[in-house]
Amino acid sequence: MLSETKEKFHQHVCDLQDAICNKMKEFDPALETVEDLWERKDFAGNNGGGGRTRAMSGKVFENAGVNTSLVHGKVDPAFAKRIGGTTDEMWAAGISLILHPFNPKVPTVHANFRMIQAGERFWFGGGADLTPFYPNEEDFKYFHQVWKDACKPYGHYENFKKQCDDYFVNKHRDQEMRGVGGIFFDHYNTGDLEKDSAMATDLSNFFIKSYFPIVEKRIDESFNDDDVDFQLHRRGRYVEFNLLHDRGTSFGLQSNGRTDSILISLPARCKFTYKYRPQAGSAHEKMLSYYRPKDW
Amino acid sequence: MLSETKEKFHQHVCDLQDAICNKMKEFDPALETVEDLWERKDFAGNNGGGGRTRAMSGKVFENAGVNTSLVHGKVDPAFAKRIGGTTDEMWAAGISLILHPFNPKVPTVHANFRMIQAGERFWFGGGADLTPFYPNEEDFKYFHQVWKDACKPYGHYENFKKQCDDYFVNKHRDQEMRGVGGIFFDHYNTGDLEKDSAMATDLSNFFIKSYFPIVEKRIDESFNDDDVDFQLHRRGRYVEFNLLHDRGTSFGLQSNGRTDSILISLPARCKFTYKYRPQAGSAHEKMLSYYRPKDW
Repeated sequence: MLSETKEKFHQHVCDLQDAICNKMKEFDPALETVEDLWERKDFAGNNGGGGRTRAMSGKVFENAGVNTSLVHGKVDPAFAKRIGGTTDEMWAAGISLILHPFNPKVPTVHANFRMIQAGERFWFGGGADLTPFYPNEEDFKYFHQVWKDACKPYGHYENFKKQCDDYFVNKHRDQEMRGVGGIFFDHYNTGDLEKDSAMATDLSNFFIKSYFPIVEKRIDESFNDDDVDFQLHRRGRYVEFNLLHDRGTSFGLQSNGRTDSILISLPARCKFTYKYRPQAGSAHEKMLSYYRPKDW
Repeated sequence: MLSETKEKFHQHVCDLQDAICNKMKEFDPALETVEDLWERKDFAGNNGGGGRTRAMSGKVFENAGVNTSLVHGKVDPAFAKRIGGTTDEMWAAGISLILHPFNPKVPTVHANFRMIQAGERFWFGGGADLTPFYPNEEDFKYFHQVWKDACKPYGHYENFKKQCDDYFVNKHRDQEMRGVGGIFFDHYNTGDLEKDSAMATDLSNFFIKSYFPIVEKRIDESFNDDDVDFQLHRRGRYVEFNLLHDRGTSFGLQSNGRTDSILISLPARCKFTYKYRPQAGSAHEKMLSYYRPKDW
């Protein structure tokens, strides 16, 4: 039963990977994909699974990664303990994606959905969060509405939305969020493996609906140098979050993951300026007010 | 005696800050400086010292930070323990600088020199390391020769050079160094406060000689788009090191330091590309071979 659920979940994330990549190509026919199938050794030096990394670049998406992986085997016991496992055997399958569009009117997006087993314990985690660079409030409302609807059958929107607000935060930047949030959950386990797996699968299927209509709406909007400058500085904050705070990144790097696949999340270009602030009275200054928890 | 040494060391790093900034202006008359005097609260909410941050930008130096600080007071006891203190009272003074030139033929440089007291214990730390983007081997030899000469009276070059090779490493990038090294030392304490302070002071005075003659030599060299592309990707690796591995950065962010002053080390612009490699047979590919420990 467990092994069937695991196999099914892994198959699902692979299918979802294909669906998302196909959707990207619809909007970006020039999209080029580098696909890498990789394998890893586990902590004992045995076969530890691997993954399918897709690095993409086109005219709409400056850089993007849509990755799946299925990793298993022995882990460093100290590491197993830190992430809450009861043995040093682990199994994990998931999809992780990040899309960095060129046009600053089109938000950056990140999502991941994963199933993890450590010894006798298993849990699910994941979510999706939006990082816009222009104060088109209706887009943020739309994104949250899709996730509100998605979570409705499970009664978890408020909880998962709050976890997202709490998680994607640059603590060292006066608690500023990296975007406008979305949903996030981790260590999710009700005791009913089938039900939990069905929920994670169901939620993941809302990703396409949550994001691509926003791309469609904004894709042809014009933008100027100030828009790009703001976007590149916000991408800098994105880098700060991913390298200083993101547990997925440190999990990956510490569990002997594939560095290129993990750091595919970083934006193609970014900027850092001492005490950066957008121009007073600009749309970008207004945008800053949205990087705080809000009811949508 | 101790308080006199502390005061003298702090005065020295402030004088050195002025000397380095003046030297930068000689090479970059267009250099603009933003100087911020800042104060901080300690862990108990009392006056905890502060610093003098200088953020600079010109025609030679795209962005640079030359900072001094003098911080003191209570620290989080867990934090004090982690850094090896015996009480929760700390005192630290130092200079920290990073210079990111526009021209990829001119190397990026970093240096810092600091004195730290935690309870009854005190120690010195610091060093200087070079991050070049073009394989001008004579520059790397020159830089190391200056530090070899500087360390000679103390017999520490081999040791400090090795500590630098071991420290400025992106472990997650197959042990690649962020540059060509230099010297680095930490927790330096022979038991003779006066002597140790004199050594740290003496070494710090070699920084100007170690770097600016390289600037002078390369400042007018031409460069092309490929040179810039390689430089921006190497700056990306610089960001990875600083945010993932640098103890100074995490020390600063965790000890309630001033975020803008700490992250002044990040380059104005940088790039990240999935599986980035310079062109086969190029000078940039050759440059990669220098990001490994070498005898100079």
